[in-house]
Amino acid sequence: MADQIELIPGNSLITATPEEGRALAVKMSRLIIKVTQPDADVRTKLRNVYAEDPMMLIAIGQTVATEFATIAAANNYWQKS
Amino acid sequence: MADQIELIPGNSLITATPEEGRALAVKMSRLIIKVTQPDADVRTKLRNVYAEDPMMLIAIGQTVATEFATIAAANNYWQKS
Amino acid sequence: MADQIELIPGNSLITATPEEGRALAVKMSRLIIKVTQPDADVRTKLRNVYAEDPMMLIAIGQTVATEFATIAAANNYWQKS
Amino acid sequence: MADQIELIPGNSLITATPEEGRALAVKMSRLIIKVTQPDADVRTKLRNVYAEDPMMLIAIGQTVATEFATIAAANNYWQKS
Amino acid sequence: MADQIELIPGNSLITATPEEGRALAVKMSRLIIKVTQPDADVRTKLRNVYAEDPMMLIAIGQTVATEFATIAAANNYWQKS
Amino acid sequence: MADQIELIPGNSLITATPEEGRALAVKMSRLIIKVTQPDADVRTKLRNVYAEDPMMLIAIGQTVATEFATIAAANNYWQKS
Repeated sequence: MADQIELIPGNSLITATPEEGRALAVKMSRLIIKVTQPDADVRTKLRNVYAEDPMMLIAIGQTVATEFATIAAANNYWQKS
Repeated sequence: MADQIELIPGNSLITATPEEGRALAVKMSRLIIKVTQPDADVRTKLRNVYAEDPMMLIAIGQTVATEFATIAAANNYWQKS
Repeated sequence: MADQIELIPGNSLITATPEEGRALAVKMSRLIIKVTQPDADVRTKLRNVYAEDPMMLIAIGQTVATEFATIAAANNYWQKS
Repeated sequence: MADQIELIPGNSLITATPEEGRALAVKMSRLIIKVTQPDADVRTKLRNVYAEDPMMLIAIGQTVATEFATIAAANNYWQKS
Repeated sequence: MADQIELIPGNSLITATPEEGRALAVKMSRLIIKVTQPDADVRTKLRNVYAEDPMMLIAIGQTVATEFATIAAANNYWQKS
Repeated sequence: MADQIELIPGNSLITATPEEGRALAVKMSRLIIKVTQPDADVRTKLRNVYAEDPMMLIAIGQTVATEFATIAAANNYWQKS
């Protein structure tokens, strides 16, 4: 497994807004697929499978939800202190 | 994957009530399906599948439960301070 | 998907006891199935499936466990302050 | 679904020790199976299935782990204050 | 299900190091399999199945991750106060 | 199951950056696969399966997300205090 892939863009969990935090969660979850399967052609083939499979789409949502929980806590839920 | 889809309506996790927080959790979970599968026709086809599949319906509930946990914490559980 | 279904009975996570909190968790998890599949006849048909399927029953338990974690935190674990 | 089943024995998350807290987590997870499938004969039949199915046994462990996380937090991890 | 099995070795979540905490998480997750399926011969048969099944191995990892989260929090992440 | 495998490299959850924390989460999740299936040849065979299976790749992402949540909390989200 190629471990030189950047796993957290910008090497920080801190984002300006919840929307950016959500996009980071989506990105981070995809980067784990990438680091586990570095072959881009294989990933494209797999994308065509999971993008049409309800259970896989739901499971992706579960991963993003867990990643986002961490990012939201890291940003203290973007509350104006 | 289309990344210009708005992932968090209103770009905030703060809601007036738990009910609104719950609706936001449902909405946020659906938006991840959308950003992963931007084709509306495909999503309609998939909806007809998961809406009649007990395991998929349960899995959707698990995603919403995790999203809601984050939103509830962000709103300090809507406690009157 | 019918979004006018009440997702949190009483619009509050606060309950008098853990037992009530647990019942709320069960109720909230069912309401997500309902809002995703509003057709009562379909849900009855699905109930006959998942109620006899060990994996689906276990998955329901996982959802309730996550919902309950949120409700318990909201109630500060019902500790006498 | 029979909702008069007691979901939390003793109506409290507080236990004297981690071991008791763990047993409570196991009990609480089983009670959700019971409240979802009140028929004891069906549950016995299902038990013979999941007790010999690795994936179902693992999934039960995931549920107990989530329940235990809540109970452990409720007991402040049984730390001598 | 045999409930006299010790579920938490040493009846404590407190460990000297993260490594010990991780081993405890692995042990605790196995003990739930044991308490759900007390028959050692059956468990040996099941082990030969899940040890060669990628999805089951991954699912075991998910359980350990959740158990470890609880143990790490109980030990305040082993931070020198 | 070989239990002498090191489960947490460096026996600490503390890392200098989020990126290192993320890599630790990936490593820790792999080490649980290793401790459950110590045979390297079997793991290589399994890797060829899960690296081409969308659902398994997604499930690996879920494990890493949970491990990372713990590591991020342990590092107080790498916030400059």
